[in-house]
Amino acid sequence: MRMFFSPSSVAVIGASSDPKKVGGMILGNIIRSGYAGKIYPINTKGGMILGLKAEPSVGSLEEVPELAILAIPAVSVPEVMEDLGKKGVKAVVVITAGFKEESQEGRELEKRLSEISKKYGMRAVGPNCFGLINTHCGLNSTFSSLFPPKGGISLCSQSGAVGATMLDWSMHTNAGVSKFLSLGNKMDIDEADAIEYFGTDEDTTVIGIYSEGITDGRRFLDAASKVNKPIVMLKSGRSSAGSKAASSHTGALSGSDTVYDAVFERLNIIRVKDLDSMFDALSVISSSKPMMKEGVVIITNAGGLGVMSADACSDNFGVSLATLSPATEERIRETIPSVASTHNPVDVRGDATNEMMISALEIAADDESVGGSAVLSSPIDATDLSAVAVAISRMRGQLKIPVTVSFAGGRECEKALSILRENGVPSYPSPDRAVRALSYLRMAQRTRPTGGTSVLPDTSGRQKVLELLDIAKGEFRSALSEEEGKSILSAYGIPVPSEELTTCQRDAVAAAGKIGYPVVMKIMSPDIAHKTDIGGVILNVRNEEGVREAFEKLIFRGRTAVPDGRIDGVSVQKMASGQEVILSMVRDDQFGPVLAFGLGGIYVEIIGEISRSLIPMSDDELDRMIMSTKAYRMLSGARGRPPADIDALKDTMKRMMKIALENPEIYELEINPVMVGKKNEGIWAVDALTTVR
Amino acid sequence: MRMFFSPSSVAVIGASSDPKKVGGMILGNIIRSGYAGKIYPINTKGGMILGLKAEPSVGSLEEVPELAILAIPAVSVPEVMEDLGKKGVKAVVVITAGFKEESQEGRELEKRLSEISKKYGMRAVGPNCFGLINTHCGLNSTFSSLFPPKGGISLCSQSGAVGATMLDWSMHTNAGVSKFLSLGNKMDIDEADAIEYFGTDEDTTVIGIYSEGITDGRRFLDAASKVNKPIVMLKSGRSSAGSKAASSHTGALSGSDTVYDAVFERLNIIRVKDLDSMFDALSVISSSKPMMKEGVVIITNAGGLGVMSADACSDNFGVSLATLSPATEERIRETIPSVASTHNPVDVRGDATNEMMISALEIAADDESVGGSAVLSSPIDATDLSAVAVAISRMRGQLKIPVTVSFAGGRECEKALSILRENGVPSYPSPDRAVRALSYLRMAQRTRPTGGTSVLPDTSGRQKVLELLDIAKGEFRSALSEEEGKSILSAYGIPVPSEELTTCQRDAVAAAGKIGYPVVMKIMSPDIAHKTDIGGVILNVRNEEGVREAFEKLIFRGRTAVPDGRIDGVSVQKMASGQEVILSMVRDDQFGPVLAFGLGGIYVEIIGEISRSLIPMSDDELDRMIMSTKAYRMLSGARGRPPADIDALKDTMKRMMKIALENPEIYELEINPVMVGKKNEGIWAVDALTTVR
Repeated sequence: MRMFFSPSSVAVIGASSDPKKVGGMILGNIIRSGYAGKIYPINTKGGMILGLKAEPSVGSLEEVPELAILAIPAVSVPEVMEDLGKKGVKAVVVITAGFKEESQEGRELEKRLSEISKKYGMRAVGPNCFGLINTHCGLNSTFSSLFPPKGGISLCSQSGAVGATMLDWSMHTNAGVSKFLSLGNKMDIDEADAIEYFGTDEDTTVIGIYSEGITDGRRFLDAASKVNKPIVMLKSGRSSAGSKAASSHTGALSGSDTVYDAVFERLNIIRVKDLDSMFDALSVISSSKPMMKEGVVIITNAGGLGVMSADACSDNFGVSLATLSPATEERIRETIPSVASTHNPVDVRGDATNEMMISALEIAADDESVGGSAVLSSPIDATDLSAVAVAISRMRGQLKIPVTVSFAGGRECEKALSILRENGVPSYPSPDRAVRALSYLRMAQRTRPTGGTSVLPDTSGRQKVLELLDIAKGEFRSALSEEEGKSILSAYGIPVPSEELTTCQRDAVAAAGKIGYPVVMKIMSPDIAHKTDIGGVILNVRNEEGVREAFEKLIFRGRTAVPDGRIDGVSVQKMASGQEVILSMVRDDQFGPVLAFGLGGIYVEIIGEISRSLIPMSDDELDRMIMSTKAYRMLSGARGRPPADIDALKDTMKRMMKIALENPEIYELEINPVMVGKKNEGIWAVDALTTVR
Repeated sequence: MRMFFSPSSVAVIGASSDPKKVGGMILGNIIRSGYAGKIYPINTKGGMILGLKAEPSVGSLEEVPELAILAIPAVSVPEVMEDLGKKGVKAVVVITAGFKEESQEGRELEKRLSEISKKYGMRAVGPNCFGLINTHCGLNSTFSSLFPPKGGISLCSQSGAVGATMLDWSMHTNAGVSKFLSLGNKMDIDEADAIEYFGTDEDTTVIGIYSEGITDGRRFLDAASKVNKPIVMLKSGRSSAGSKAASSHTGALSGSDTVYDAVFERLNIIRVKDLDSMFDALSVISSSKPMMKEGVVIITNAGGLGVMSADACSDNFGVSLATLSPATEERIRETIPSVASTHNPVDVRGDATNEMMISALEIAADDESVGGSAVLSSPIDATDLSAVAVAISRMRGQLKIPVTVSFAGGRECEKALSILRENGVPSYPSPDRAVRALSYLRMAQRTRPTGGTSVLPDTSGRQKVLELLDIAKGEFRSALSEEEGKSILSAYGIPVPSEELTTCQRDAVAAAGKIGYPVVMKIMSPDIAHKTDIGGVILNVRNEEGVREAFEKLIFRGRTAVPDGRIDGVSVQKMASGQEVILSMVRDDQFGPVLAFGLGGIYVEIIGEISRSLIPMSDDELDRMIMSTKAYRMLSGARGRPPADIDALKDTMKRMMKIALENPEIYELEINPVMVGKKNEGIWAVDALTTVR
């Protein structure tokens, strides 16, 4: 990656002296941005371009350039890539569009590029991208004149236009940028490479990423978990409509959004949902001291803004309105004679001078309970906003805590805001955003987990799974029967209630007698995936007569549902009692196996809460996964109910993890319900749904 | 109110030629804003002020001014108010601060003002306020030079500083304002008066209100329900921290925020949570055509912005991404040769001309499924944003649908944005806000309900309530016993399971035998409000032995919980079965009786969903209250459960309303649980908690 961002020489293929052509813009930008390395324009016509001698082809270059940027028609790209490979170039940026995002032919063309770059060991950015920027060596290889000020933010965007928006924002707000990378179609270099590189880059303090979908999830996980800098990420295509729009845009498969939530949660990546939030987070993190405590002090000359910001302290993660000590309040009162409220939010009144606002800030910043501050002012003629801006810019270096500012309003604030911007003080158009910015600082404090794994049980059922896979393969089945699924669970030491498969009423009665009433009876058929949907499960059968009746009903319902399907009989099973829970494992295309957990039965629909986490996870992560849920409150004994056997549940979840890790052929495994008994009673896996591939 | 906003003459009491004094600022502002009526400066020293002859006192004026504005020390206000009353002035604005928001003496001073204004039939704005503005007659009576452009937005703010922020915003974004009113301490004129007046004001098309708490809720309800203009309201003090900050600020009791939600829901008031949202909503509603259908079409030159806006369509109320017809898509393809996606979001590509963007917009606007549009552009050099801005400004009058714009970024967009602002085209800094603005347009389409009331049952238990109130009063009790509460329910025709109060084991056994097993047994004591918390309810007692045991336990637990309390005995009651539901009625200090409904038992904690509505309500509102809940999905038969008797539940809720309306002495009445049986089985009110005052 070093060659992309700090090359000693750059070749621009498709260079032109026409500033309206992409190749012309790029060459011009590289020259104007002050790049100190060698620049080689390449144009089939040769000649002089923007004062530099152009070669007609890559082959005719005397030196091997470290970086090549391609802005030529799509059809010519493969040939030039071959030439570059032969020449020994190792880093290529393909600006050109018209590949997989456009058509089937484009898709094939892109495949060829990929083959060529592999053949020569070249790394490639793009195609269909916007270029890259390194402010620290004055390299602007994009086709836009936007060139941000130097600073610590490194940006990466799948979409070129969103990238341009980010650059424009950083220039407008004077938010300093280190590197910028537009990924485009991500044929080779992707978010994982960007994170890896930005993570080691000394000039980068915070990473901002816009993505429409991660292609290689496991690489992304690996890369991000090694980087200990705050990462702010806007992953769009959250909704099904958005996700559809994303795939037609850069051809990205955006994956299930709930899994992204689990990924970002795992990695403590700050997930933002819109551009405003992205910019707010990046600006505050790149320019502020860390916020070590959750207490926020508000200094304002307008009570109303104080009230709104107090609300915002409750709305946002990791912050709360600090309670100032009596000593602090006393000091404020001594300094500001007419203070309206020394209680936080501190209201110095509309007629306070800027010195008073600053004094209040300095005093409050020393308070034990305070970790961060927000200064809010409204455009009242009495207050000199510009003077406040100058004072904050001067003194904030000495403060122990971070400061955000909101001068709410528009026109009257412009001058004051530009002073803040020039001095790199993060400011926001409304009080709630000034508080939310502090919340982002708190999120940035979270470290990335080291990625430990729970100690998994010794038991292995791999042998059993291989047997069953053989059988299923022989029968061209991708779904295992309930019985088969349960035998896998048993093999991994997950308790399954004793049951008997019966094929006539008499056998069913006999089985129930042996197992003991009450029993549950179920239709057994590999062709019926969701038994309850067809009334294929009858609970709480209490006597012989009930068994006979249930048997008839189940066979009838089964036949009606799948007239041509296979019906193996009726299962008679001990009626397990306890709290119904769902456990499932699904393999995500991007991120691999995901464990899901939620309350079962009617709660699924009513509460609709499913918590998801990537496999493997550490003991801490497993605890967090369980304890952050409403289900946990139910299981741990809400309203005087007896607490459930959460240890047994955890053990079962570890066994599920083991199944996922040992058996890549199992695509989906759902136990619904798991009946969780009271403390020390254990659990029962009552039904299992398994698909393989 | 006419005299406040369009007075034929204004007296400024405390007028001064010093532009640093409040009285000087106000007089100067009135003159500068072009007010055409007569202006009378009053100053004890007399003389000439800003070219006008000043009188030493109100008494010496030749004419009775229609409006008087007071900017004099707090202690002098009562005397001047007397003078004004005697003179016959009917409209007074008290700018002066230092009343109830500051101290106990201030509170008493304010009370005097209130008495004086009542005595003379004067209406008063303030004290502790910022003044008022009418752009249509050029009246700026605030002490700020902020004077917005003319337009249809009327603003009202409890906080002066937030008011100033609103004015500054409207000037910055060229959002036209009709009236502005700063309320301050709301001694007399409040939000209800403002809404009433703005509702009839011909120049007002949309009303924006910042409030920290409504004092007279019923008046507010009356006023708002008569006004058929969109109302956007920011009510701060949502959180407990914010609410505490609000009461120290303007001394407002902010009330329970959940009740405000019910109020805004009832009135279809657009509730916003921060200033950005407030401004976004006001600007789009005041400047756009109505949005008649939920379908949104996105026109963009940047696929990434399209993806984000598609997400926003899913996130926001009343909008969805429109599905364009094949004919529309074909027309777009014919017009724009290189279009990247004719599917919505329509991506015309970064190299599209502004003419192409406009054509795409025009074509899509004709599509059957489209009700509104958002044009999104990123700052790519190829696109001339200013040209797009000019074109949209020109053509949007001809379009059938509203258009919002987002030119995401900062610096590069400024010129284009100023063109949009000049032409009153609503624009937003990010794509999601452009879509959210369309959602506000949809909210503005909702009409206010006419305020019908359900036909309530004939049965009245008023007599019974009066009896019980007498008894409670005699015993200095504010809580009724469970038995008393249930007798009220019975008197209003709400079914209560038969039960017997017993005082010894033998009686309890006899009662259980008579009622039939299983039974529920409960400790009965007026001093134990929440029986379950002390284990005072034992369910499902199945036989004689069980009754004996339970009796002993309950008496023991009762004695332990309230050693000195009254214990009446143990109630033996039929064990009712069904779905547990909570119904409660509480009288809110501001808005009167509120009916609450939610699932009971463990669901209360786990789901935590309580739906609230003001009493009285119409049948439609009652239906909506029930059907919008998760509880409804449970009651109507989730996962194959038998549907519950929702009709009986509704009937019970109507009877609760009747109790609330007939008995103002009942402060709180909670039935927890109501057991709702299966369809046609009815309901049972199992426990009742009643407080009176």
